[in-house]
Amino acid sequence: MIRDRSKLRWNGWGWIAQRDRLAAHDAFWTWLAQELGMPGLLATPPRPLEELVLPASRLTAGERAVLIALLGADRVREGAHERAFHARGRSYRDLLGLRAGDLDLVPDAVLYPRGQGEVLAVLMLANEAGIAVVPFGGGTGVAGATLADPCGFKSVLALDLTGMDRVIEIDTVGGTATLQAGISGMALEQALKARGATLGHYPQSFEFSTLGGWIAHRGAGQMLPRYGTAENWLLSARLATPRGLFSTEAVPASATGPRLSQLIVGSEGAFGVITDATVRIRSAPAFADYRGYLFRDFASGAAAIRTVMQNEIPAAMLVLSDAQETRFCRAFNALSDRQGWSDRLADARREFNGFDDAACALVTGFEGTRTEIRESVGRVAAIARRLGAIPLGRSPGERWRAGRFRTPGLRDSMLDRGVGIDTFETAASWSRLDALHASVCQALTAALRANALKPDADGIVLARIAHAYRDGASLEFSVIFPRRLDGEIEQWQAIKTAACDAIVAHGGTISHHHGIGTEHLRWMEMEKGALGLEVLRAIKQVFDPKGILNPGKLIPR
Amino acid sequence: MIRDRSKLRWNGWGWIAQRDRLAAHDAFWTWLAQELGMPGLLATPPRPLEELVLPASRLTAGERAVLIALLGADRVREGAHERAFHARGRSYRDLLGLRAGDLDLVPDAVLYPRGQGEVLAVLMLANEAGIAVVPFGGGTGVAGATLADPCGFKSVLALDLTGMDRVIEIDTVGGTATLQAGISGMALEQALKARGATLGHYPQSFEFSTLGGWIAHRGAGQMLPRYGTAENWLLSARLATPRGLFSTEAVPASATGPRLSQLIVGSEGAFGVITDATVRIRSAPAFADYRGYLFRDFASGAAAIRTVMQNEIPAAMLVLSDAQETRFCRAFNALSDRQGWSDRLADARREFNGFDDAACALVTGFEGTRTEIRESVGRVAAIARRLGAIPLGRSPGERWRAGRFRTPGLRDSMLDRGVGIDTFETAASWSRLDALHASVCQALTAALRANALKPDADGIVLARIAHAYRDGASLEFSVIFPRRLDGEIEQWQAIKTAACDAIVAHGGTISHHHGIGTEHLRWMEMEKGALGLEVLRAIKQVFDPKGILNPGKLIPR
Repeated sequence: MIRDRSKLRWNGWGWIAQRDRLAAHDAFWTWLAQELGMPGLLATPPRPLEELVLPASRLTAGERAVLIALLGADRVREGAHERAFHARGRSYRDLLGLRAGDLDLVPDAVLYPRGQGEVLAVLMLANEAGIAVVPFGGGTGVAGATLADPCGFKSVLALDLTGMDRVIEIDTVGGTATLQAGISGMALEQALKARGATLGHYPQSFEFSTLGGWIAHRGAGQMLPRYGTAENWLLSARLATPRGLFSTEAVPASATGPRLSQLIVGSEGAFGVITDATVRIRSAPAFADYRGYLFRDFASGAAAIRTVMQNEIPAAMLVLSDAQETRFCRAFNALSDRQGWSDRLADARREFNGFDDAACALVTGFEGTRTEIRESVGRVAAIARRLGAIPLGRSPGERWRAGRFRTPGLRDSMLDRGVGIDTFETAASWSRLDALHASVCQALTAALRANALKPDADGIVLARIAHAYRDGASLEFSVIFPRRLDGEIEQWQAIKTAACDAIVAHGGTISHHHGIGTEHLRWMEMEKGALGLEVLRAIKQVFDPKGILNPGKLIPR
Repeated sequence: MIRDRSKLRWNGWGWIAQRDRLAAHDAFWTWLAQELGMPGLLATPPRPLEELVLPASRLTAGERAVLIALLGADRVREGAHERAFHARGRSYRDLLGLRAGDLDLVPDAVLYPRGQGEVLAVLMLANEAGIAVVPFGGGTGVAGATLADPCGFKSVLALDLTGMDRVIEIDTVGGTATLQAGISGMALEQALKARGATLGHYPQSFEFSTLGGWIAHRGAGQMLPRYGTAENWLLSARLATPRGLFSTEAVPASATGPRLSQLIVGSEGAFGVITDATVRIRSAPAFADYRGYLFRDFASGAAAIRTVMQNEIPAAMLVLSDAQETRFCRAFNALSDRQGWSDRLADARREFNGFDDAACALVTGFEGTRTEIRESVGRVAAIARRLGAIPLGRSPGERWRAGRFRTPGLRDSMLDRGVGIDTFETAASWSRLDALHASVCQALTAALRANALKPDADGIVLARIAHAYRDGASLEFSVIFPRRLDGEIEQWQAIKTAACDAIVAHGGTISHHHGIGTEHLRWMEMEKGALGLEVLRAIKQVFDPKGILNPGKLIPR
């Protein structure tokens, strides 16, 4: 079944019918304007599609006829909403472009294949005709990996995989499920839950993003410590390529040279189109426990997470807000109707313990049997206690769970009001994490100031440990700032560059879970090395000798 | 420090001074002859090195001089023992060749570099001169990956890495250790234990094999369920290649395209020489618990392992012998002085429970804190009870631990007495495991019969589940048979082919932990696909355009 894109925003996040949750929350907006040093918020609505003229499709009549013969007229679409929806992903840079009506780069047509055979046929045709193909799942990526850029080819097709959303097999004995790659997170988990199973991959984009997209961009779910990324849960994948079908090893483990399925994880559509995948599933957890702690400072909170991971206590989630984010969220909660007795109790305890503005909030999550959870929560509580933390009970955990898929939509609300927001993310060794956190915050603060709308209206920097491992953790940094409307792409580019340069300089990866796309291309060689890039190019050359697959993404030219 | 190879057998396993543990155990040998249908054992000693004439070294005087200038005279060796020791690995096929004095393929010289710079220099020289280079760690591999075959190059060098055994850094905060690749398992664990840490990688070759070898051939340790393979514990590696140094990503996790360190795991020396690696370490476990259970049949034992893995009970080891192996080990123990009161008690219980010859023994291992172990052992005991198993207590576990690195040496004892022994291994989904076990045993039984020394003296087949995962398990098959002395390579080849064909036909991988080398080359395309092999060739082409690195291994030509 084709997903009905007409009900989704072409220039923002999610459903058109979804109301702006903060629209009526005047107190929040007044407070935010003050925080940002803005005299008041602005009205900066996006340009409507009706005002815009899209470039004419460059498909020839012959190409169109062949595609229609292949897929059916309903699956070869050239309407304005379809093309605009598939023009870009949903990064801050993408949103700036879409809202400004910059549709110079749009697909010439959007295709909705039904299965592997049709995808292969489309690729053969495109390869023959010299047409670029951009595989498209949920379209929720934030690194520019679905930008409809023909990169010198004569036209560009968006290949929307969401019509390929079938569950092929669930094998509860083998502990695996095989699904078409276009299935959304929501549909995938529904199908697995009906069999008592779960994949446990919950990115913020869960409602819209697809299995294939998760694999292709090497994304992370919020409960990564327990459920892992595609690197861990992908057993095997089938890839349609211009050279034919490629199936990776279908065995649980092997010593037959490098595992080629690992080349698919992070391939970003550049090696082939993932048509279906077999993933390792687990029993759906019977119980969950999400709760909060407050630490005196970032270092002690980070030490707690490290201790939990290195003692292999099976946490599902560990998120530590830094002092700025803790303060920001506390102020936001104080403004909202969400604050209850437990927040007030926490405030009292915080004062009693002499915690100051350096305090940092940790949310922990555990899933499993009741016994497992009781055991793990007890061990973590003991670690937190030893490190001087205040337990905050379940309400921070429940608040986090309730809002966990909502955050991306808030960007639209801010963008409507002259406010910009972007998130940068990285991961590094525990040995480097403190210095990395400090340096990137410093670089971002300086960049916000140097590119501010006006002096004293520069913006704020929030950060958090978002995912944790035995050997390190990922850091996320969010910036919220008044948009410099006369040069907002430049403003963003300066901030982005400052963040990424600081990340690389301090031993962080250029992307922990957003991928490379177009936005991280320039730091790719620093991470992979010149020989590493040659390897990626050589692999692409095997599968896609003419380079029609998602050109200009992943591998710098 | 160079490992002193002169004290190691050039044509067998381990130390020359190590006595044959079973030499005086007449009862065992008499029983084994009976089992195999042999009227008596034979005396089939290997040919001594003194009898043999090695081919003259093909190095030119100029090449020798440059190598000596580079490494020093003591690190460029051309003595008979050195060359013979480095001629092959230690597979059954290798042992047949070495014992027969077949030294047509020997390295022209053996080099012992001290570090990365020297390895790079050697590769530059070899690349320039057109000399093949075979990287060599412990030399304990059993798939032919260290065969000194020049494959058309004018000569071949064995690059022995065991002189590169330095601990570079142990970072207990970051949870990682960086070591030179030539360090042996024993030295590595000693260094880590001194800092309260462990890697936990214990292959049977632990005493001799090296970190670089473990990574290069994608091997497994006996406690794989807890500690994983290089796929899991390798953070990053440095590779010396003819095109220069290649360093893989040094971050704990990233979404920057495929993780290139995964290309090094299983590279078998074909892409470069691993000079050092950073691995994820853990706290050394305070306690261990190894114990046994007896199941009524293979299916219920396998179900127990599957239940443990799929419920994520953190086992360190789960090994289930099939009925043949259980019977064999029981008979062996009954013959030896090892049988104590607990064995007799187990026999009594077995009879009381009406277990017959289908009974299968499981050994479980747990490592960690006392509380963790108590909890896990309790859960596993409950699973075993539900599946009708008899607990055998700790003595089977202790017996397993005591003998766990001894098995490879037994092959020499058997080979000395006209008996052949080889092991084949695979892994597959839980859904396929029973059929795979039955089919491979059947194929092996038929092949033994068809290639028997004489009718009714064909040999025996033992099998076990050796490692387990959530989505499947590895099976190992051992065959013990009277050697057909007039055609023993052909006999072995026929048995090997029957095993591997049956494995591939029933959805198993052609190697779970032995690697590809030369012995599994012909099944490689079935596993990786034609495009997959092209990918491997393209990667090799980047690092090693002339193909001097370990030619003829890993990738079929």
